[in-house]
Parts: sequence; structure tokens; C-alpha cells
Amino acid sequence: MVSEKTIAQVGEFALIDMVREALGTSDYVLIGPGDDAAHVATADGTYVTATDILIEGRHFRRDWSTAADIGRKAVAANLSDINAMGGVATALVVSFAAPGDLPVDWVRDLVDGMVRECTEVGAQIVGGDMSAADQIIISITAFGDAERPVTRSGAQVGDQVAFAGTLGLAAAGYGALSRGFRSPKVAVDEHRAPHPPYAAGPAAAAAGATAMIDVSDGLLADLGHVAKASGVAIDLDPEAFPILDAVRTVAGALGGVDPLRFVLTGGDDYALAATFGADVDLPEGWTRVGTVREGSGVTVAGAPFEGDPGHRHWT
Amino acid sequence: MVSEKTIAQVGEFALIDMVREALGTSDYVLIGPGDDAAHVATADGTYVTATDILIEGRHFRRDWSTAADIGRKAVAANLSDINAMGGVATALVVSFAAPGDLPVDWVRDLVDGMVRECTEVGAQIVGGDMSAADQIIISITAFGDAERPVTRSGAQVGDQVAFAGTLGLAAAGYGALSRGFRSPKVAVDEHRAPHPPYAAGPAAAAAGATAMIDVSDGLLADLGHVAKASGVAIDLDPEAFPILDAVRTVAGALGGVDPLRFVLTGGDDYALAATFGADVDLPEGWTRVGTVREGSGVTVAGAPFEGDPGHRHWT
Repeated sequence: MVSEKTIAQVGEFALIDMVREALGTSDYVLIGPGDDAAHVATADGTYVTATDILIEGRHFRRDWSTAADIGRKAVAANLSDINAMGGVATALVVSFAAPGDLPVDWVRDLVDGMVRECTEVGAQIVGGDMSAADQIIISITAFGDAERPVTRSGAQVGDQVAFAGTLGLAAAGYGALSRGFRSPKVAVDEHRAPHPPYAAGPAAAAAGATAMIDVSDGLLADLGHVAKASGVAIDLDPEAFPILDAVRTVAGALGGVDPLRFVLTGGDDYALAATFGADVDLPEGWTRVGTVREGSGVTVAGAPFEGDPGHRHWT
Repeated sequence: MVSEKTIAQVGEFALIDMVREALGTSDYVLIGPGDDAAHVATADGTYVTATDILIEGRHFRRDWSTAADIGRKAVAANLSDINAMGGVATALVVSFAAPGDLPVDWVRDLVDGMVRECTEVGAQIVGGDMSAADQIIISITAFGDAERPVTRSGAQVGDQVAFAGTLGLAAAGYGALSRGFRSPKVAVDEHRAPHPPYAAGPAAAAAGATAMIDVSDGLLADLGHVAKASGVAIDLDPEAFPILDAVRTVAGALGGVDPLRFVLTGGDDYALAATFGADVDLPEGWTRVGTVREGSGVTVAGAPFEGDPGHRHWT
């Protein structure tokens, strides 16, 4: 369906029909969208679940990202939380609210982007809700299976600290976009629709990771959550981080910013950070970047890193 | 904690700590709030799940309802969806977004109301997300166990049609409030915080209900969903419905409106409607009000009921 109509013109029920047609199914889905609740199977009688809410103007901008990219990123943020428990997402429910003058085609592209990101892990959208609102709001809850859920609180003194995925690229893209640039494309694209390392979470759990978190507020801030929950300190080796060319390019274009700042404080790549016993061979895709110490807080080469302490709402 | 501060003044992390302190736990909760995802057990390796989004000014008004009532109603709307599958809710995740000038005490009261409603069925809030936004937004996803989930699509010609809970009371309360009245109190209170018949859903499933739905858009509209999904017609007996005194009072005060209009088209009581085989003894709390026929649509004494076809967004 290609339509230049607004969602107010087609109405709620036609919009729901359109969304449902765009969804698929999977073996986990016993009862899918269209009833009071969905009915979903689990592999072992337990599930992991996480939720995220995205608000237009705060988490995404329609003039910076396509609807499909916004849909991909909204789903990625939730799949990443399941990934960070060492789990694999199987099902999602999506609530969507928007002003009535929103084009129907925008919603269709949003849903297409959501479905595309779901296929990265084989998950299915199994239900949702819609409402009118002054801003576009996307609220997603993801469910998954995790054989051995990895929390933030198990890091031990002497453990290796490692990451998987990319760091700093999305933040560099945001930095470029916020100053009116549309390049480097690889960075701008990563900000618009990140590529979380979906294989790395279950691999880390299988390898015995002691703690794990996804990097959404920035590596220093998120490792700070691990250090606090585990009652340990974490020291990072600044030489251990790969720095992508696009990150260097943006850092230079912004007047000589230290590119490591993007790597250590940038969110939105949905990388993973985890701790592993000292003797563990890190799984594929993981890079060692530090060590767990006695104490508290996160340091870089033994000293505090001056910079953004991570994103905060209402401040 | 009693505080006259705003949420911007205390900040996201203090607000999260406050919310977490207000929550409890249950045997189903293996890992609760504070990690990337919660880990929740199921009774039989499957779960039912439903989600609802509530927007300030559209689903609730701060000048009409207390924060505690808004919290209760937001949770009730979700628990009701699980109820309508014949299930019992065990866990919820809650996303919350608001302007920074919202008083912290309002959020605390909201959470207290949510927790209070959860105790009606023994469910637990196991996770959530927060964001800044221009309006207050509450997005909840509920999970539950259902031994035999009852969908909307199983109604058979000849089945009894029955309801459980109250009908029309919340709509009468809304009618009173929207004209500046604060009474009858029983109706206004039901609009502010409904009392869904939480025992009636599992009882209907155990009794072999063939189809079930919760009444959120109005009985005619919601039975219309059952009729459409099941490929049948439903005829209601107007004499079979109890009409509460408060509903009659409001109908009279509004200039002689037919009180049956509130009963048949009012939402927000979160009653249940279900179909049962002709020979089934209805479980406690259920009242027979009609019969499933061949055909399509919902009629009252054989004729269409003139009136509001139920709530629509964006129209």
C-alpha cells in the first residue's frame, strides 16, 4: 500500500490492519497480534524482558533519520538489552503514539524497519497498542530466552574487561549531524541505525562472562554501572581501543577533539561490555580493553577520564 | 520520602532509586529491576503478554484523577488484557516519560497506585525505562500465565453471551466529570480507578469459555470484535442488563439519556464479555445477556443499537 494519507484520515483500525500485514510469525508465537494478549512459548520456562521508550525530538529526529532507520534503531535498542543478558530475543510488543497528521507511509516504513531489525535475531512483533499524542512515541518491550542470564553484578577482581561491537561511531555521527554535516556516511548511518553485535552476547554468556551490559550511555558510564553493581573498580587501557577512521575524521573536523572521547563516552552504538575470568579465551568479536581492580569507579590508565559522564534526562 | 522537588531537580537516577524502593518481588521474579533485562519464570514454559500506552490529556487528566488513581488505572488496563485471555498476570514492565517540572511526589504516588493494583493479582513490576517528554506518557507491558488462553475467535452459533464486572459506571463517571460534576461518587471513582473482575477471567477459561474480551471500547464495540473474529452474529437482551442507580442518576441529570447507552457503549470499567456453550453453568460473577447467532454484527433485541460505536483515536 502506498498512501499519501495521514493516519487521522485512514483511522486506527485501518492502520492496525496495515501494521499486522507487515508482520510475520515464528515458532515461538502461539497467538500473535489481534487478541487481548499474545501467547508466546519459552525454551525453558523462563524469559528475559526489557523495555525502552523513544520520544521524538529526544531520541530521534524525523529530519535526520528515515522512518525505517528509526524503526530499526528502536528495535535495536531493545534487542541490545536482551543481548546484554546473554539472551536471544524471540518476541516484541510495540506501542505507538503520534499526531493525527502523520503520513501513513511514515508508519509503514517505520514498521518495515522494525521488522527488518527483528530478522537479525529471528524475533517477532506479537502485539501492540496505538494512541494519539502530541509527539511521536515508540515504546517497545522485548522478550527472549537466556540459558544463563548475565547480570551487571558479577565482576570479580582480576577479571578481564572486554567489549564487542563498535564504539564511538554513532556518537561521531551525531556530532557531525548536530553541526549540519551529513558525512562521514559510515558514522552518520551508524547513528541512524546501529549494528549491535547480536552474536556476541550469547557467546559471552557461553564463555562464562561474569558481568555484562550494553553500551547505551557511553562505555565509561555503563562500565560505571557494572563497577557499582559488582563492588569493584575498572581500569581501562587507552591504547587497547581501535579508533575508526570516521571517528578520527569527525574529531578533527570538530577542532581537534580527542577521538578517544567518542569511544569512551559515546552511546547509541549498542556495543557490549563484559568481564571475563583472567584465564578465559575471549570469544570471537571480543577485544580486551582493561582489568577489574579492587576499589570503585572507572579509570583510564589509572586516572579519571575528563569528559561527559553519560546522558541524563531532565538535566 | 516526601519531596516538593521536581523530577528535573532530583534527576533520573534518584528517581529510579525511589521507584525501585517502592516495588516488591514475587516467586516469579528471578532477576528484578536494575539490570539490562528482567528474568521471569513461567508456570508452563509459555506466557501471555499485552501492552497499553496512556497519554496525558487523552487517557487521563491530572485535574480529574490523583496520581495514585492514574497508576491504578494504567496497571488495571493491562491486567485486564491478561484477564481477558483467562490468565493471571505475574509481571509488568513500565516506561514513563514526563516534563521535567513534574513533582517527584506525583511520581511516587503514581508508583504506589501501580503497586497497589498489582497486589490485586499478585503481579510484580520487574523493569522499566524513563525519559523526558512534553506530556506524561505511561506505557505498560504485562505478562502472565494462562493454562488455556481464550481468544476472541472461538464463539459458536448457539453459545450464551455473558459479562462479568460492571458496565456503564465508569462512562457515567466520565459523563459527570466532563460536565463539571464530581458525583455520583461511585461512578466518578470507577472512572478514576476501575475494579476489573480479576477472578472472572480464569474462572471463565476453566469453565470452557469459547471466546472472551475485555470491555475497554464499550460492550457493543468489543463484542463486535468477537463477532467479527468468530464469524458470527451476537444478539443482546436489553432486559438482561442490571443498571446501577448511579448510571440512572447521571443519565437523568444529562437530560434523559437512555441509561442503557452507558451500559452498552461505555468503556473503562474493564468488565469482561465472553461466550459459553449453551449447556454451560456460568461461573460465579457471570451474567447471561445474549446469544450467538448466525450472521455478523451485534444487535440488541434483534435491531442495531443507535449510538456511539466506541472510542476511536485520531477522529
